[in-house]
Amino acid sequence: MSDPLEYGRKVLAAQPFSVLLGAELVAFSSRSAEIRVPISAQLRQQNGFAHGGVISYLADNALTFAGGSALGAGVVTAEYKINYLRPALGEALIGRATVVHAGKSQAVCRCDVFDLKDGSEQLCATAQGTIARIGAPVAPAAKD
Amino acid sequence: MSDPLEYGRKVLAAQPFSVLLGAELVAFSSRSAEIRVPISAQLRQQNGFAHGGVISYLADNALTFAGGSALGAGVVTAEYKINYLRPALGEALIGRATVVHAGKSQAVCRCDVFDLKDGSEQLCATAQGTIARIGAPVAPAAKD
Amino acid sequence: MSDPLEYGRKVLAAQPFSVLLGAELVAFSSRSAEIRVPISAQLRQQNGFAHGGVISYLADNALTFAGGSALGAGVVTAEYKINYLRPALGEALIGRATVVHAGKSQAVCRCDVFDLKDGSEQLCATAQGTIARIGAPVAPAAKD
Amino acid sequence: MSDPLEYGRKVLAAQPFSVLLGAELVAFSSRSAEIRVPISAQLRQQNGFAHGGVISYLADNALTFAGGSALGAGVVTAEYKINYLRPALGEALIGRATVVHAGKSQAVCRCDVFDLKDGSEQLCATAQGTIARIGAPVAPAAKD
Repeated sequence: MSDPLEYGRKVLAAQPFSVLLGAELVAFSSRSAEIRVPISAQLRQQNGFAHGGVISYLADNALTFAGGSALGAGVVTAEYKINYLRPALGEALIGRATVVHAGKSQAVCRCDVFDLKDGSEQLCATAQGTIARIGAPVAPAAKD
Repeated sequence: MSDPLEYGRKVLAAQPFSVLLGAELVAFSSRSAEIRVPISAQLRQQNGFAHGGVISYLADNALTFAGGSALGAGVVTAEYKINYLRPALGEALIGRATVVHAGKSQAVCRCDVFDLKDGSEQLCATAQGTIARIGAPVAPAAKD
Repeated sequence: MSDPLEYGRKVLAAQPFSVLLGAELVAFSSRSAEIRVPISAQLRQQNGFAHGGVISYLADNALTFAGGSALGAGVVTAEYKINYLRPALGEALIGRATVVHAGKSQAVCRCDVFDLKDGSEQLCATAQGTIARIGAPVAPAAKD
Repeated sequence: MSDPLEYGRKVLAAQPFSVLLGAELVAFSSRSAEIRVPISAQLRQQNGFAHGGVISYLADNALTFAGGSALGAGVVTAEYKINYLRPALGEALIGRATVVHAGKSQAVCRCDVFDLKDGSEQLCATAQGTIARIGAPVAPAAKD
């Protein structure tokens, strides 16, 4: 498939959990990826903010796509770390991930997560992690 | 409310995202928490494994509950790090978190996530993070 | 003291471990800090590369200074995460840290560590962490 | 060499930075390692506490040795995360690392760092990270 964005969207659409959350791949090019999640009532916690688990999902998945853009298909997030910066009150979350360094089998990536509210974005979390290429698509843990 | 488990279950039930995922607080006592998530088809990724975002959600939330057991109500996960160890193929995920060290306003906690398959458990991820007490329940980011 | 760089250098000079490693504060301004460590034979590991512990020291300390530039005097690194990207073979390491987000009592910062070899720099590690303001300079752990 | 501890001590003695810090491998067996660093005046920061860089060095190195005990010779720390819990005021630091999960080429390990003061130990930091086996001892970054 020649269009990376179209290819990436098919991968995302094949993830039932991403479909459940309404995630959309907005951009996907060499060494970067952007995923958006509209924050419906179902994705909030008890105070009305986007649940940290949704923010983590978004950071994790954007990291994986960014890493995959450098390593090729068949990658998994091996590990990551996230700092929450502010509560997310807006109508959507946007995760923008880029590759910091890519080798043959691993890539270290960063992801900033933004809270979109009334048309303006505010950084609400930042993450850093390792994406690993796997030998076969059926064995994600083959990374080790 | 005198029963911590009953109290914790009300907190979890007040989180729409936790309800969406079917999370259940199994144990909640001084300095520890156990949360279980049945892995329905909706919570999987393209290869049939539990999605990393679900595992992250579980680790994050179990860490928060464990930290809250030490710090009191009104806590948030400030940051955490997770290593995925194996793909989770089973019927449920179990997150068990404990407090490593608690001060007055922050607690450092760990969480092991287990994949429950055919009655046996296998460690599939491990996390470590900081839980922060917040001044007021309406301002989770007041931690900074 | 009106000159932040002069002030920062006095802080660094008051750290015996930083003096032992020959660390030098190269730049220190609002929300950023740059520290350089010449890599003498003593700071290497068994293969001749800069020891990971030196790289960690540098990332940790640059993070602390960057955080301190935003929070004021009396800060400690509460936690951080580092990814090593390449072995460092050069004559010096340079750590450049910036503030990603600062609140009243905590700042989340990032640090890139570069290997300086024959006049050119190459990224060799990247870190992300939390810097916490402490109530009194004699009690660094008062953060929790 | 049949004695793992003797072998490990030779590895540590071949690291100039570990020699500079006075690190001693106290125990080294299958899936665990213990390293001790006496805290001389040179290893402190401006308030008299063990410098965070020393604690990081210790955690990083103990993680590497623990990972190496499971993966075999030729390993590097790919990444780790550390939380500082209390200032270390004592006469020595002890890092105890264990393997949480080991695959063929990577191991996820944990390390607790203790402050030894007047004969009693207190936990002062905790770390979690990934140790990677490298193809050839001369190319630590072959991990990626």
